[in-house]
Order: sequence, then structure tokens, then C-alpha cells
Amino acid sequence: MKSVTRRRVLGSFGLAAGTCVLSSCQSGNQVSSSDKGGWGYPWPYVELDPEATAERAYYAYEKGCMYGVFAPVVKQLAEKRGEPYRSFPVNMMQYGAGGTGGSGSLCGALNGGAALIGLFAGTEERMKKPIGELFLWYEQTELPVYTARKPVSDIDIPKTASHSVLCHVSVSRWCAGSGYKSFGDPRKERCRRLTADAAGKIVEILNARLVGESLSGAELNEDVKTCKSCHTKGSILSNSRGTMNCGSCHFSLAKDHPKIPAT
Amino acid sequence: MKSVTRRRVLGSFGLAAGTCVLSSCQSGNQVSSSDKGGWGYPWPYVELDPEATAERAYYAYEKGCMYGVFAPVVKQLAEKRGEPYRSFPVNMMQYGAGGTGGSGSLCGALNGGAALIGLFAGTEERMKKPIGELFLWYEQTELPVYTARKPVSDIDIPKTASHSVLCHVSVSRWCAGSGYKSFGDPRKERCRRLTADAAGKIVEILNARLVGESLSGAELNEDVKTCKSCHTKGSILSNSRGTMNCGSCHFSLAKDHPKIPAT
Repeated sequence: MKSVTRRRVLGSFGLAAGTCVLSSCQSGNQVSSSDKGGWGYPWPYVELDPEATAERAYYAYEKGCMYGVFAPVVKQLAEKRGEPYRSFPVNMMQYGAGGTGGSGSLCGALNGGAALIGLFAGTEERMKKPIGELFLWYEQTELPVYTARKPVSDIDIPKTASHSVLCHVSVSRWCAGSGYKSFGDPRKERCRRLTADAAGKIVEILNARLVGESLSGAELNEDVKTCKSCHTKGSILSNSRGTMNCGSCHFSLAKDHPKIPAT
Repeated sequence: MKSVTRRRVLGSFGLAAGTCVLSSCQSGNQVSSSDKGGWGYPWPYVELDPEATAERAYYAYEKGCMYGVFAPVVKQLAEKRGEPYRSFPVNMMQYGAGGTGGSGSLCGALNGGAALIGLFAGTEERMKKPIGELFLWYEQTELPVYTARKPVSDIDIPKTASHSVLCHVSVSRWCAGSGYKSFGDPRKERCRRLTADAAGKIVEILNARLVGESLSGAELNEDVKTCKSCHTKGSILSNSRGTMNCGSCHFSLAKDHPKIPAT
């Protein structure tokens, strides 16, 4: 995993648009609010260790995938800095489990990672790129790769690329690739390890942003670019939005769709 | 919209599993934390007015659909009760705009509503049903229905049922139904009004839960029940999870799919 030196603490990612500097917000166990109320926004991010975060996420998965990614980051910051991190109701993030309340929509590990970016980034515009990095990594990487020193279950867990950010698709593809059922210990262990992977990845992304870097590497695949050239913002049709992998739902072109030239 | 009397404040939804009672957490503008640190969890919910919340959400949409649903609820509670609501960094919820960072996945208005349920419900198990109510209402209702007294844009906005909780699908269906493009003022006005609708709906759901009621009414459609009878937990195949409307992505059955008996 990418290393960021220890000296690189409190860089531009957390502070550029911030109104709350840690030294003025923290006073032992007693918290104080600003004149305007609340803690200010965005909250500063302090460099964390991806491996240590992944390990904590692996066990935090007990409260679901969104909690598993979100809580270990905020809790480590609380251990290092106290407030305001200590007052964040991290337990609320249980709502993202199973693609949000079990609905199978956005993978909770990604929702948790995106929520962290939201907490530290400051403006919607500054959130898009790091969220895109996280989501593309998830779509395109064969997961899970994390191995625990003390695994909850030592079942051999096959890796699959989800080609989608959606829990339903991600789980279905893994079931197809592994032969395991969608409920039961092997699938839970898969999602537990994947939660650890996502937590490590989001810390890599946040650390890189501290020093003004982008991990980049991942980009939209060629099929998606082709679809977007006609269907998204500024194109001829402009009749959709989003960056999700098209083929994970559009399994084939509609019968009346014009032929797409080979690239 | 459903009415819950003013006397019904701080019911079981917010307090049954809670460790933080408002009277012990609030002391004017000065906040104090519990012995364990933080504010406790879940946070208590106090009855709000759906119409007033919808109106605030309509304008709060300026910072995106997730923020637009989440912030007006927490800000109203902050106005009524002060802390801990006042310290919640509501601006982080900008991350959910455009289906999370513009990815087109889960509609941000729903992510914001689900996050509120997360804040007030206490356990993952207690979050599922109200999230399901919100999501099914969104999938099955022709939206938007909200009309502002002082609209940002007074364009006539057609209503469509999204049949999906996904931003990408919801926007695409609305574009198909309305003839408007996916970016531009009409689509923004549609999502602004839809954000107001979702904010009103989540307050209805939260108010009903205060008195131990479920709005219910909405349930999985018959097609989804048929699919789930073979593909989800406890079924023969058990190779998927989720409750999303299947037909919004699975436009037709795979060629080798067994014939489904007519119901």
C-alpha cells in the first residue's frame, strides 16, 4: 500500500475550506463549540495507516460494511485527537449494511468510504474525484485480497471483480464465481474481507489527498466511455447520468439501438 | 400527509435503545459529553412537520439531494433542542449528490433519508423496515408531487415512477417520460422537488415510528416476489441479495432461464 510520511499531517485536503482547526476545538475531555455552533466543517483529516485500518475494519464489520469502513477511521482520529471525532455517532452507519437497509443498492463499504470523503473534503466538487477513485477501484479489482492474522473464518474465499458498485450485483457475481450462496458464512467472510480492503483503500486515498496527490490509475472502461459519448452530459442524447459500469445492468443493447462502431 | 399529535414527542423510536436522553445532554449552548465520550446513540427524534420539512428541503437542495433531505431534519432538531444535533457536520452529506459523487448509484435523497433512520433507530435490524418503506414509496410513486410557494423554477415538471432506487435509472426514466435532458434546469427542478417529497416522506415515517406505527402500504411488487422466491435468502438458488425492483436492470429473462408460471 502507498506510503505517506508521518510528517504529512493536516494537509490541504482537510483544512483548505475548513473553519475548525483542531487546536481550537479540543480541550481534553471537555468539548467546546464555536461561536456559530457546532464544530465547523470540513473536519481535518490526520494521516492513518492503511493496514491497521483494514485490520480494524475486518472486525468492525460485525456492525455491517458501511460501519466497518467508516467507524475505524473516525475512531482512530478520536484516539489521536479527541473531539470532534469522538462525538460522531458512528453507529448510525449501520444503516448502509447490505446495500442500505438490505436493499442491495450501493455497497455499504463504498457508502462508508464516500461518507468519509464527505466529512473531510469540504465541497461537493472536491468529493467527486476521490469518490470516483474509490468506486472504480472497487468495480475493477478482484476482491477480497485482505487476509486477517486471526481470521473470523478461515474458509478459502475466491476473488471476483464485481464490475459494479451495487451490493446486489457484487454479491451475485461473487456467488456465480465462487459457487457459494448469497447468505451464510462464506459470503459474510467475503464481505468482511472486502470491507477491510475498502477501509485500507479509502485511507490510501485520504493520505494521498493530504499531500495534494491523486492515486488515479483507475479510469472508466472503454465501453462506458462509448456509452457516455451519446448518453450523458453535453452529448447528443443527454438522457442519463452517472459513471457506473453500464454492462452490469445493460447486458445487451436494445433491439433498436444503432450499431456501435468497433474501436 | 399523516398527522401525529404534538404530545407524541420522544417515543420509542428514538429512545428505546438509546443511552442519551436529551435533558442530560443539553445545557444551553455549552455541550457536555457522557462518561464514555460522545453523545450516546441513538439520538432521540422529536416530531417534525412534514410540510415544513419539505419546504426547507426544496431550498436545501442547493447543496445536493442527500444534504437536502438530511440537513433540514437535523437543523430543525438543533433549533428545538440544541445539542447534539447542532454539532452534526451536516455538510458532509453533500457526498450523496447525483447518486453518490455523481456516480448515479443510490438516489441521494434516499441515502439522506436512510442516514436519518440510521441516526435515530439504534440497531441495523430496526433500520430495515423504515428504510424499506421509504425505498418502496420512491420506486412506486409518480414523482415529484411537491409544489413550492416560491419555486426556484416554475417549469411544468412531469411526474414519473422510477421503478428503481438508483439515481441513474430514476433520471433516465424521467428523461424518457418528460423529453427533457439529464442535465439542465428542468431536471434540476425535478430533483429539487423530489428531494422535498422525500424529506416530507421521511418525516412522516419517523413521526409514525415515534408512536410505534408503520406506514406500510407499500410492498414488493409481484414480479420481485417471484424472482426472490428462487434467488434470495433461503431459496433454492440463494444467489443474490436485495429488495430492489428486478425489472429496472433485468429487462428480460436470460435465454436459458426456466419459464415462469403465470400467476
